[in-house]
Parts: sequence; C-alpha cells; structure tokens
Amino acid sequence: MENIQKHSIILWSRDEYRLRLTRIREHMSASSVDAILLSDNANIYYLTGRVFAGYAYVTLKGEPIYFVRRPVGLSGDSVVYIRKPEEITGSIGMAAPQSIGIELDVLPYSSVQRLVPLFPGAELKNASSIMRSVRAVKPPMALQMLRESGERHARVYSRIPGLFQEGMSDYDLQVEIENVSRREGCLGQFRISGDSMELYMGNTIAGNNADTPSPYDFAMGGAGMDPSLPVGANGTLITPGTTVMVDMNGNYNGYMTDMTRVFALGDISPLALKAHQCSIDIHRALSEMMRPGNTAKSLWEKAEEIVVAADLKPYYMGHRQHAGFIGHGVGIEINELPVIAPRSRDIIQEHNVIALEPKFVIPNVGAVGIENTYIVHADHAECITLAPEEIIYFDR
Amino acid sequence: MENIQKHSIILWSRDEYRLRLTRIREHMSASSVDAILLSDNANIYYLTGRVFAGYAYVTLKGEPIYFVRRPVGLSGDSVVYIRKPEEITGSIGMAAPQSIGIELDVLPYSSVQRLVPLFPGAELKNASSIMRSVRAVKPPMALQMLRESGERHARVYSRIPGLFQEGMSDYDLQVEIENVSRREGCLGQFRISGDSMELYMGNTIAGNNADTPSPYDFAMGGAGMDPSLPVGANGTLITPGTTVMVDMNGNYNGYMTDMTRVFALGDISPLALKAHQCSIDIHRALSEMMRPGNTAKSLWEKAEEIVVAADLKPYYMGHRQHAGFIGHGVGIEINELPVIAPRSRDIIQEHNVIALEPKFVIPNVGAVGIENTYIVHADHAECITLAPEEIIYFDR
Repeated sequence: MENIQKHSIILWSRDEYRLRLTRIREHMSASSVDAILLSDNANIYYLTGRVFAGYAYVTLKGEPIYFVRRPVGLSGDSVVYIRKPEEITGSIGMAAPQSIGIELDVLPYSSVQRLVPLFPGAELKNASSIMRSVRAVKPPMALQMLRESGERHARVYSRIPGLFQEGMSDYDLQVEIENVSRREGCLGQFRISGDSMELYMGNTIAGNNADTPSPYDFAMGGAGMDPSLPVGANGTLITPGTTVMVDMNGNYNGYMTDMTRVFALGDISPLALKAHQCSIDIHRALSEMMRPGNTAKSLWEKAEEIVVAADLKPYYMGHRQHAGFIGHGVGIEINELPVIAPRSRDIIQEHNVIALEPKFVIPNVGAVGIENTYIVHADHAECITLAPEEIIYFDR
Repeated sequence: MENIQKHSIILWSRDEYRLRLTRIREHMSASSVDAILLSDNANIYYLTGRVFAGYAYVTLKGEPIYFVRRPVGLSGDSVVYIRKPEEITGSIGMAAPQSIGIELDVLPYSSVQRLVPLFPGAELKNASSIMRSVRAVKPPMALQMLRESGERHARVYSRIPGLFQEGMSDYDLQVEIENVSRREGCLGQFRISGDSMELYMGNTIAGNNADTPSPYDFAMGGAGMDPSLPVGANGTLITPGTTVMVDMNGNYNGYMTDMTRVFALGDISPLALKAHQCSIDIHRALSEMMRPGNTAKSLWEKAEEIVVAADLKPYYMGHRQHAGFIGHGVGIEINELPVIAPRSRDIIQEHNVIALEPKFVIPNVGAVGIENTYIVHADHAECITLAPEEIIYFDR
C-alpha cells in the first residue's frame, strides 16, 4: 500500500495545494496575521492531505515549513524533523513574525503557553478562526471527495432494510449498519471540533429513546448504552408504530457527508407523517435559498415559518430538549461553518457544503425528518446524499 | 432504560462518591489549590459516574456545585443550570477562591481565557495534573468495572480464530472483530488524552504493515486505510508465515482494559517466535516488579535488560520507528499514569492499573508480543485480561 509518492509531505496535487495555501494566506492577510503555526489534525490535513504529528508554519510569503515529530520518513523541500516544539525556533529562513496565529480554540492552554515564547514580541492571534473561515469554502478536490462520500453513504443506507430483523433494538440495528459501513470502506473516525463532543460512529435511535436529552450538542439525543457515553442507541426495541432514525458516519475519505433517513415498522401516526413531510418541505424551500450572499439566519427563519404554519413547533428539533441549530457546514469535521441557527452571522458562500437536518421528535413514535448534504453553487444547491426521502417501511 | 435514579447527577454509590471526592481534595491540598473547576468528560465522569456538559466546582470544604448546560432534567442538591460559563460566578455559597485549578492540559486556550476572569484575584493552577494523579489510583468500583471489561475483552478475543477466513486482510479481520465486540457490548469510544491522538476502535495489523510508521504516539503503527487517519489496518493480506497483531478496544463500561494477542497463518520464523516468547518473559518479570514503591523506570530498565540479553533490540517496540514507552496506566482514558518509560518519574502505587505491552516488529513477518492489563496490589499484580498468551494459529 506504500509508494514513493506517499512519503511526500504534500499529498494533494500541486494545483490543489497551491490553491489551499493561497486561501489560507488570503484569510491571514484579512486578519492582519503574518504567520500561523498549525498543529490540529484537521488543519494539517486540510493543507497537506495527510495527518502528521508536528506543525505547519505558514507565512504570507515564502514556502511553508513543516516541523515533523512523527512519522519518520516524510520528505519535502521544507521538512524539518523535531523532537519538541522548542526546536521550531531558529530554523533556517524563519524571520521573527510581527504576529503569530495559533489554534487557540483547539490547542490546550498549556500547549499554547509553551508555544508563545518561541515567537518573542509577536502579537498572539487566533488561527482557529482563520482556519474555520478558510475551511468553510471547499476547494475542488474536496467537492469531489464529498460527492464520492455521499455516494458510498447512500449505498450503505440502501442496504438498511435488508439488515432489519424483528426483535431488533436500535443498538442491534446500529451495530449491523456499522458493519456494512466499514465493509463499504467507512473510516469510522468521527471528527468533531469543540468541547468534549463524543459520538461513536453515528446515531441510530428508536421510539421514545429519541426523546431522551443528551449532554452533547447534536441535533438529536438518545440515552446511549452507558452513562459514560450518554448519546444514541440505548437498546430500545423497534416496535410497530415507532420509527428508527439513522444518522450514521459518512467519513469515507477524510471529507465527511452527513445524512439521515427514517425507517418504521408498520404504520405510524398521522402527526409523525405530517412532521416528516414538513422536514422534506423545509429541505425543498431551504435548498432554493442556499445561494451565495443569503444569510444563514434567513434560512433558519424560513424553516421556523414553515414549522409554525404546520403547527409542529413543540416537536421541532427535539421535544424535551431542543437543539439550537438546524444545519451546519461539514467537511473534515462534522461541525464546520456556516451554522444555520437563529443568531448565526454566517453568510452563505459558493462551495459551502451544508448538512441540513430539520427533525422532529414525536412522543411515543420517535424521531422523523431527513438530513441531506448540499454543495452550494452560484445558481443551485447540489444534493450529494441522494436516496429516497420518504419513511422507509421494514418488511414484517 | 431510564429510571429516577438515572436522573440524579451522581450515579456512583454514596460511599464510592465520597471516596472519589476525598481523593480529589487530598490532591488539591497537596498542590495548595482551594478550588477546581472540572469540565473534561473524563474528569466529570470520574467524579459523578456520568458525562454531562458543564462544570463541577469542587472546593476543599463544602459540597461540590454542579453547573449543568445539558442534558435537561438532572437533579441533586447542588445542581445549577447555566447557559454559559459566565453564569458560574455569583452562585449561592461560592466564596472567592485564593487559587483556582482549571484543566490546562485539556481545555482549549480560549476556553481557559474565558474562565479565568470569573475568579478575580485567584492564582491559576493546573487541575489536569491534579486529576491525572487522582485517576492513577483506581477506587474499588473502578477495579470491579475493569475486571468486568477484561472478561468481556477476553471473551471477544476467544472468538477471533472463528472469524478468520483465507484471503482476509487485516482490515477485513478488524471489521469482523469490531462487530463481535459491539455485539458483546463494547461502547467503541476510545478515550485518549492529549494532542490529536486518533484511533478508530483499535489496531489490527498484519505482516509488514506493522512496520509502517504512524504519526500517533501508540506502541504500534500501521499505514491505515487513508492518509486522513494513518494508523492501523491498511488492507495487507494475511498470508502464510506472517502475523496479525490484534489490539482492539476494551471499553465496555467507561473503564477500559487494554489487551493484545497475536495470530498467525502457518509457521512463522524462529526469530519471531523468540521475540514473542521474550515479550511473555518480560510480562513474567515485570509483573513481579509491579509493587507499590517501585519506580516505573526500573520496570522499563528490567525489560530493556531482557531484550538486550536476547539480542532483540533492533525489533523492540518497532523497527523503522520506535515507541518511547512499553506500558501505561489505563482506566477512563487509554493513556493514564503511570508511564513505563526510560525517563518516567512515576512510582508504582497500590491500585494502579497498568497495561504492559512489550512488542516487537520482525521484518517480513509482522508484529509479535502481547499486552495485558494488571491491577497492582500490595503483594501481587493481578492480570485482568486472562487468555492464552502464545501465538494462536488460524486453521487453514
């Protein structure tokens, strides 16, 4: 599986790499930052196409320098092997920057405290916010990878009806979906940015388990199987008249899609059917509004209007506990920009990739609603998680 | 699955909770810290037996206060619901501390910057190092949970020979082990502390893939299936004369065991057999030295002596890239104290739980050696991952 090319520190094509570097520099300039030091896996991967342990030092001019701790054997014009961060200083070609961007929203306090003295006199800036803005707009290769992820994600979902057997719980079904996903090549890793968010491979929730509040800031909850990981499947049996919501991992190549479909065993209540249709209606309306220049907030408001008109507000985005957003950017991590939320200041941009997930929790039925991932283009939104959207009924 | 008791913020028994609180306060006193604010999932779980989003504020005297953001519905004498950290200040009964411990090795820089002004005049201390010391010594309930994890972990490994089919790769085998683990109730989540460590559900590596350096600071590497997650199985076929090392997730209840066994298809080289026996010999010798008061360093040195005497140094803990440790504490996270490494300053203590993993990489064969998890007692080390230790041969 190894070859010479894989040993190069940069795995993207030359054009793709140059484009990514240029975008980082544009955002650095806009924030008056003359150097950034990246070490978060997601940002390192964005720039180089691989994860390594170490740092990427990017300046407005001159080639980036890659300070690598592990693995051994990476090559490139500007690869410098180090054992500890203090060896970063004094590297050939490094002029002292006026300001230094460090990933303040990701790196632990003590790691930042250790890095700051390496740049004496430099003003400390937040590289996390710079990289969040950069990564909100996907470069061409990422769009291709996301389309491929979406296809594989949908292929796995098409096999779910064949996995169901009577007597299964939400946990049993999730475990079999995991197996099919992994056989399809899903990497499993669920990359997420921010305080203590945890989820193993996705969220499959049946019946009233959907109404159990979770500590994590996901759109849906679930009790989980253990109080050490209180989210998702909890062993609730899939019974006639209830739903199973499947929101499983779509990380097939480093760029993730996000996708939800709902399954049911036998007929479900008219209220649940109405709410599911309302979610589809919101997708139709909002995908028409996913155009460069529109505000994320206006999308959230439009959805709210549809929900209120349908008299479904008490069930919208949860019932006992409500989520504060109905959509989010997705890419290397599951929670990228823009955020579709009432107080969001984000503006929709061309080549944003947005997962939209207007969902409802109906007591004694379960969760309904769908999630799709869209690429924003100048004149349309391209859905990349193509699969039937109606509720899919299991054979009995 | 829900019941009233589950809504209590504290899920441990009263005695277990008191003991945990007492230990935290002992370590706070020893570090001259009069208050700590915990928010890391692992630390919150240690104290309460559940994960919630928010903060636990612990002082030397008086009951802890739990500031909860999510989930809704938790109860307890001192549960205060908040929407943002700024609401922490001014809570009833909170005297201004002289010093405040915050998890500086875990919380992002910007989160700490936001918390510090809430404690004006207080000296900033590192709660991460306090909690690392506390968590190195396991309380009684944790030992029981670890024994149970070890039993379930070993039960899954006993089923591995039945999963193998000719023509499988390390990836194919890992996916089937994941499925059996999950059916056995493995939670999957692999909790790890520290910079950007990532691993999905464990590491199964065949043949020369074991010799591929990884960016992550695990004992073994592997190329992985994608440069976005370059560790572990990479699709290497399991062929006669090579080994498969299985080091899969043992998180069954919030406290994890760590366990490795080696499988082979047909005879492997005398060098590989010798190295595997050497690993078993190191386990025998070091488990005799796992006694309160001994230094972690002395264990590492003893192992080194055995390896050098056996002339196996070039293959020890990797071949192209070497790991810097041969053992580590394990519990809520996979990398707890003590660390068995050449420059470790840790002293072995009663009820440390230590995963010992002296391993070798033999070119053109693969990885050999075993890993067991031990509980340290005053007069013996108790192995809690009981299973045959010799190489297990697959039927052809």
